[in-house]
Amino acid sequence: MKIEYRPIGFVSSPHQTTNGTPIQPSRASGIEGTVVLEEEYVEALSDLDGFSHIILICHLHKAADSKLKVVPYLDTELRGLFATRAPSRPNPIGLSVVRLLGIDGCRLRIEGVDLLDGTPVLDIKPYVGDFDGRTEVRCGWLDEVRGREAVADSRFEK
Amino acid sequence: MKIEYRPIGFVSSPHQTTNGTPIQPSRASGIEGTVVLEEEYVEALSDLDGFSHIILICHLHKAADSKLKVVPYLDTELRGLFATRAPSRPNPIGLSVVRLLGIDGCRLRIEGVDLLDGTPVLDIKPYVGDFDGRTEVRCGWLDEVRGREAVADSRFEK
Repeated sequence: MKIEYRPIGFVSSPHQTTNGTPIQPSRASGIEGTVVLEEEYVEALSDLDGFSHIILICHLHKAADSKLKVVPYLDTELRGLFATRAPSRPNPIGLSVVRLLGIDGCRLRIEGVDLLDGTPVLDIKPYVGDFDGRTEVRCGWLDEVRGREAVADSRFEK
Repeated sequence: MKIEYRPIGFVSSPHQTTNGTPIQPSRASGIEGTVVLEEEYVEALSDLDGFSHIILICHLHKAADSKLKVVPYLDTELRGLFATRAPSRPNPIGLSVVRLLGIDGCRLRIEGVDLLDGTPVLDIKPYVGDFDGRTEVRCGWLDEVRGREAVADSRFEK
């Protein structure tokens, strides 16, 4: 079974190489970029400016083939891939919750950009706390490395 | 530019038809289901049992072709598609944050199931509050309908 998607737009970002790119939007505070949407979808942006945050679902086009276990950026041990946010996945889909600064025609100005320049965007959803946020969560190995600093390097690069 | 994905597994759920299916995991409290992962990926589940919640990224295989404006389940007005969570999207990708109850081999038992039986799963990510949760958010039209009850109907069905 094959599933075929097409980009609805592309990210314009200051991050040209994986090395040094923030590993999550929450670690990319103040870094701005743009989503340039295909013109045909501009009408579908109506009402989105009422939302402070949006979810970008992207195709991580520079990610290497996936492995079943990886050493994540924030750890030194091998972890099961699905217990990590490593970009190299069977389907290399990225999930980024970014702040929406403004919309001008087909251009969405965003803040908290952890995506490489040229990343294809597959979907844009409004972030809704009731739908997407959870409190009282356990985060396994990530609970143990809380506060650790890291940026991306080339380990998951094609 | 075409992007091709393959399912890593499928959802087994009590929801056989769109009509009456909860419209979000937060409105599917107590409803259990299973993700049946392809055997080849079982090793990639290591360490995931330390996380209380996971993000399922799915291909919404029953969604109709997308329109630029839709009347969402929770509203009575036409809204720009990207300002809604309607399943009919240019790339019909669903995002569900569900509780992980347990893992047994290739089977993940989950709670908060808002997905139809047989839905193809594209990716599984651990939910991490620091990465995925946001507080202090504005939610546009959705702020005005807070508390409104609704379940899915056939309006977005293929």
